[in-house]
Amino acid sequence: MRLGRVIVAGADGPEPRVVVGAGDDHGPWYDLRGALRGQARRGGASDAGARRLAEALAPASMSAALALGPRFLDAAREVLREAPEDRILSAPCFTNALDPSNYRDFMVFERHFSFGYRWQGKPVPDVMYELPVSYAGNPLSFIGTGETIPWPGYTERLDYELELGIVIGSECTNVSPDEALGHVAGLTILNDVSARDIQAREMAGGLGPSKGKHFCCVTGPWITTLDEIPAEGLRMTAQVNGETLCDTTSAEMVWSVAEIVSWASQGEVLAPGTLLGSGTCNGGSTIERGVALAPGDRLELSIERLGTLRNELGVPAADTPLPRARRRTPTGESAELHFLI
Amino acid sequence: MRLGRVIVAGADGPEPRVVVGAGDDHGPWYDLRGALRGQARRGGASDAGARRLAEALAPASMSAALALGPRFLDAAREVLREAPEDRILSAPCFTNALDPSNYRDFMVFERHFSFGYRWQGKPVPDVMYELPVSYAGNPLSFIGTGETIPWPGYTERLDYELELGIVIGSECTNVSPDEALGHVAGLTILNDVSARDIQAREMAGGLGPSKGKHFCCVTGPWITTLDEIPAEGLRMTAQVNGETLCDTTSAEMVWSVAEIVSWASQGEVLAPGTLLGSGTCNGGSTIERGVALAPGDRLELSIERLGTLRNELGVPAADTPLPRARRRTPTGESAELHFLI
Repeated sequence: MRLGRVIVAGADGPEPRVVVGAGDDHGPWYDLRGALRGQARRGGASDAGARRLAEALAPASMSAALALGPRFLDAAREVLREAPEDRILSAPCFTNALDPSNYRDFMVFERHFSFGYRWQGKPVPDVMYELPVSYAGNPLSFIGTGETIPWPGYTERLDYELELGIVIGSECTNVSPDEALGHVAGLTILNDVSARDIQAREMAGGLGPSKGKHFCCVTGPWITTLDEIPAEGLRMTAQVNGETLCDTTSAEMVWSVAEIVSWASQGEVLAPGTLLGSGTCNGGSTIERGVALAPGDRLELSIERLGTLRNELGVPAADTPLPRARRRTPTGESAELHFLI
Repeated sequence: MRLGRVIVAGADGPEPRVVVGAGDDHGPWYDLRGALRGQARRGGASDAGARRLAEALAPASMSAALALGPRFLDAAREVLREAPEDRILSAPCFTNALDPSNYRDFMVFERHFSFGYRWQGKPVPDVMYELPVSYAGNPLSFIGTGETIPWPGYTERLDYELELGIVIGSECTNVSPDEALGHVAGLTILNDVSARDIQAREMAGGLGPSKGKHFCCVTGPWITTLDEIPAEGLRMTAQVNGETLCDTTSAEMVWSVAEIVSWASQGEVLAPGTLLGSGTCNGGSTIERGVALAPGDRLELSIERLGTLRNELGVPAADTPLPRARRRTPTGESAELHFLI
């Protein structure tokens, strides 16, 4: 099964709707809320009751829908079985399949991360082989396929990152790798859009990227459920203006999808709708190719069975005034040193 | 004005309610929803209508309340003026004042960050004096005063971090420092609880702290609005088991509250309810004191006019199995090097 979201015209303007399609990358998309409303009506609900029930089972937010647990997924599967012709969308306008409840991005492709460290003139730290290392991102800046990627005023070096996106389907904590896949709703494509110049500057501080990442992510065009596809070994390709810059596979992940979910869940609760990124696949950004993107460039990021994200880069925003620099003071250097880890 | 949240007994179990109090750190707390319901009833609304209106204006979530804009803040101020005696809470049970819509933590106290770099044997990077540097945290792991801080199974070295919390009150993007404070609802205390051993390991990878931070944060006990207090120069103190380990002031911030908000808003939209942390104040964690915390330790973190967060450390959870280590392969080292920033 594939789950996505489309924009439809509502009484108060455009609004997102959850859609469902068969898992074979083709075939029609069904308006889930409309189909459930018809189903409830036929089952004896009043018109108003059927509307309320359908709204509860198919909310506008994919994270809110996943939070309903198997009730939501079962309802979507039932609609697929019924295949109601009057609920087929003729020209679906996709938006971000997932509005993540939370977002964390890992870094598990060895060729990519090794490149990154060598580029900074550093050895690859041991921890990269000990743990799947991650940083938290901004769950509120997601757009979908077809939308223009904003170019912030504080960067001259916008880049894409082709990643596998793991969508948590049910609340979990302290799960083992063996249990982990049972909590994954499905997989999707993730473009962790990056502003390389500011990212390099801020990461010199040793904290995770922030302004270099938080302005935009792209995800979708849909989520394919794990009963349709293997969790590992999917082909991943990136094209810029029609030229293929990357053709690789998720089989090269140092840590598996199950291991990533398991480690992410230790000591904390992963909420339904949490998005975990694999980190950039090997060769999956322009820095490894020595090319720079320009405004208007067309990106096509594809993963086998997960479709293609098509986005154009926007025009740079007006210059952003950077914060006013400070002087170092003797304060820091004079403080007494104690430490204990 | 002070805004907080308390737990009350509801028909379906405990539920959070927004409360409002005068800005002077004393005096009663009023149940906002109850007060607004009475007000609407006296204004001519039916009982059912008054309930609905009060629920809409005073939702359980502080982020959802702030998203209502001045309507929410004006309604709270009006209740304070009316001071309805029948809506005074006699023994309020506080929970996290803010359930943040998003969370980012900065690092702007020079003595603290200088200590951190010297501790790692590194010079303080120039960027710390060029930009307020930050990382994104987990907005879904917040608890309040009085609650027990969980001790994850993967750490032996739990620590507190006393920080000033800045609460965004209205949506903003690309605001200048001069405009920034107009988008701040108020200030609160933040304890960015840290697991130092895993944090040190994962930060060797160069990405922001993740498992070292994401399991728990504490905020509250309330938010004091900016019309009551200055944004800068507040006294900050930390006690462990009654002993004062830190007594400092937010006047030592290298970047002001206004500058932090302005930079955070560049190129992205800050949602109402976003929490921006100042980073640990000077001396505001145990690593600078060379002491280690133990299960059951009592923390009291105070900021002038913002109250005190009182929390006890929990008992360590059962050992967490760390991920299975990998071997380095020649893959990374052999990849061709291109780069361009």
